[in-house]
Amino acid sequence: MNANMLIIHGGGPTAVINSSLYGVIAEAKKNAVIDKVYGAIGGTEAVFNEQFMDLKTLSDKQMALLLQTPASAIGTSRYPLEQDDYGKMLPILKKYNIKYVLLNGGNGTMDTCGKLSKVCKDEDIFVVGIPKTIDNDIASTDHSPGYGSAAKYIATTISEIGADVKSLPIHVSIVEAMGRNAGWITAASALARAKDGDAPHLIYLPEKPFDEIEFLEDVKRLHDKIGGVVVAVSEGLKGKDGKPIVPPIFQSGRATYYGDVSSYLCNLIIKELGIKARSEKPGLSGRTSIALQSSVDREEAILVGEVAVQAVTEEKTGVMVGLKREEGSDYKITPILVPIAEVMMHERIVPDNFINERGNDVTKEFIDWCRPIIGEKMKEFIDLKATY
Amino acid sequence: MNANMLIIHGGGPTAVINSSLYGVIAEAKKNAVIDKVYGAIGGTEAVFNEQFMDLKTLSDKQMALLLQTPASAIGTSRYPLEQDDYGKMLPILKKYNIKYVLLNGGNGTMDTCGKLSKVCKDEDIFVVGIPKTIDNDIASTDHSPGYGSAAKYIATTISEIGADVKSLPIHVSIVEAMGRNAGWITAASALARAKDGDAPHLIYLPEKPFDEIEFLEDVKRLHDKIGGVVVAVSEGLKGKDGKPIVPPIFQSGRATYYGDVSSYLCNLIIKELGIKARSEKPGLSGRTSIALQSSVDREEAILVGEVAVQAVTEEKTGVMVGLKREEGSDYKITPILVPIAEVMMHERIVPDNFINERGNDVTKEFIDWCRPIIGEKMKEFIDLKATY
Repeated sequence: MNANMLIIHGGGPTAVINSSLYGVIAEAKKNAVIDKVYGAIGGTEAVFNEQFMDLKTLSDKQMALLLQTPASAIGTSRYPLEQDDYGKMLPILKKYNIKYVLLNGGNGTMDTCGKLSKVCKDEDIFVVGIPKTIDNDIASTDHSPGYGSAAKYIATTISEIGADVKSLPIHVSIVEAMGRNAGWITAASALARAKDGDAPHLIYLPEKPFDEIEFLEDVKRLHDKIGGVVVAVSEGLKGKDGKPIVPPIFQSGRATYYGDVSSYLCNLIIKELGIKARSEKPGLSGRTSIALQSSVDREEAILVGEVAVQAVTEEKTGVMVGLKREEGSDYKITPILVPIAEVMMHERIVPDNFINERGNDVTKEFIDWCRPIIGEKMKEFIDLKATY
Repeated sequence: MNANMLIIHGGGPTAVINSSLYGVIAEAKKNAVIDKVYGAIGGTEAVFNEQFMDLKTLSDKQMALLLQTPASAIGTSRYPLEQDDYGKMLPILKKYNIKYVLLNGGNGTMDTCGKLSKVCKDEDIFVVGIPKTIDNDIASTDHSPGYGSAAKYIATTISEIGADVKSLPIHVSIVEAMGRNAGWITAASALARAKDGDAPHLIYLPEKPFDEIEFLEDVKRLHDKIGGVVVAVSEGLKGKDGKPIVPPIFQSGRATYYGDVSSYLCNLIIKELGIKARSEKPGLSGRTSIALQSSVDREEAILVGEVAVQAVTEEKTGVMVGLKREEGSDYKITPILVPIAEVMMHERIVPDNFINERGNDVTKEFIDWCRPIIGEKMKEFIDLKATY
């Protein structure tokens, strides 16, 4: 007997979450056991509000637009589910004859996925997770869809800012990337380098305690040598005490607001070194730029969507689709299914062998690992100052 | 008798200054009276250091790269020329048999252009200016090359951030654009709107005194209505007293350092309204993004380079190439020559008829004026939250 499918998006969007949605819808259309493909319009709470839309009704043009639309076309949320919310979902799923549930999101959403799959265990309802995060902090997968585009964005942006600062070397530019606990995006800035001496000249990740004295030494040394310095920093830099280096600027209820790391470090450079410094903080652009979407990321995002539909209709449950990188010199990815319990165990941070000893750069191992994920080759520039 | 040409870049780069350089070199190659095309490697001071490179030696591949290379391929500077520096340039120009001088830059560079042309008046040396600025604050031209790409960048970026904030409406996003005295770039964010209600929801330019109380009223009203609000602000917002709204954070010699307007306004929203707010400050990306280079801007940048070569070899001097917009519904630009003295007279700011009465948006007149300059049509997105 035919049944319906439900797809829910959770957490912050990426440049390719809609590509995974494309993969889900395209695959579901091919699958005879699926009747409707409900999209939860507005994230998890849409389930309680029964805000569902049949995505099989999308036109070919709308389907094509999904591949080049940033954010989540069906909306998303950070709705905090309580333990008894899962039980409350059951009657709604049954009311809509939903047998297949797909949850697309990061670690928080995978947690939801695990808990919902437990509640649905004996109910003939199957729950599968689709990984998505720009932060790349989901465990048990080589990397997550969304990361490749964020990586391409920061690498391209830094290569362009690097050209600007080299052509007019009057300041230190501090470029801030997203990633509060995991420095994967900031690390990818290293892909901007076409040759020795190219930006970024310094890279600081939240995985290593940030030492302000060493930072100022590094900036001063480079400024004396080349004038224009480009520094990539993670928004989540922490000191030796594990606390954010930027003091909290405001407390509102349970929320603490921190200032921007890039502004903070600019002020530090100006005050301590008397060198002109400026901050660039692309912020949300780092996860929304369609012009800098990675083709590999987009293809992999479609793939995990398709595989999730195959898995859930084969009545797999409590699993997430992961990406396994095959051995060998050519980049090759195979989709795998990972038990959600394994994913829920930890936040994946940048390992030690990807960070240099002083903690101001990444290693060649990281660059080799990251390069294929950003897709297209970096654009080549002409620099006549260098050839002079 | 053949003579040489010199091209100098001044001030901050744009996404198409190298396209103008392409136009200069390509046109010079066609012109029999020009022998070498010297590029001043590193801006104005390169003249004193005699750092010249013959740009006619560039390969076809290098020429093609100019069109997609951000920053200035020959370098640029903010070197402050003293009155007697102009006289010191003369013997160097003569030593290198330079009869034709092109200066590519903004208002500061056009000032240099005017002063140098006066010194060269009876010397059989001709000086022509090529306009370039992302800020669009050069007088006597419909707009300046460099602006179209900066406008396309902010419009595209705001449309993407708008999609993100609509799909996850949990905060107010303050996006800061360059332009300390002129709000042309910030104004162009309005081109992001495909339909009523699209981001940006508020636009603040430095031309109008910024009123914090009205700003908070506007943000609160919109937040209550739509949740996620996107605000475009100029880095140079000033209060009724004409002073920057952000207090200076540091004084170093004669330089005053101000904090970021976007951060400042976020803190204001959090403290005064208790609403979550975040800042995005693309900074230098706004003038370096090649992916968001405007095709119209690129073509016009090439054109002004070509016309400058034609003018200077016709022994015009003390003029800048301007762009005149022809009357009629179709966008059509004709290059003109403008006396430098006229250009030097004032900084061109956004006129009153382009700003709405409350000073929190632009008018339809501005949008109609600006739209053709960004080139390609804005990308279309799919938004299923809207159709639900």
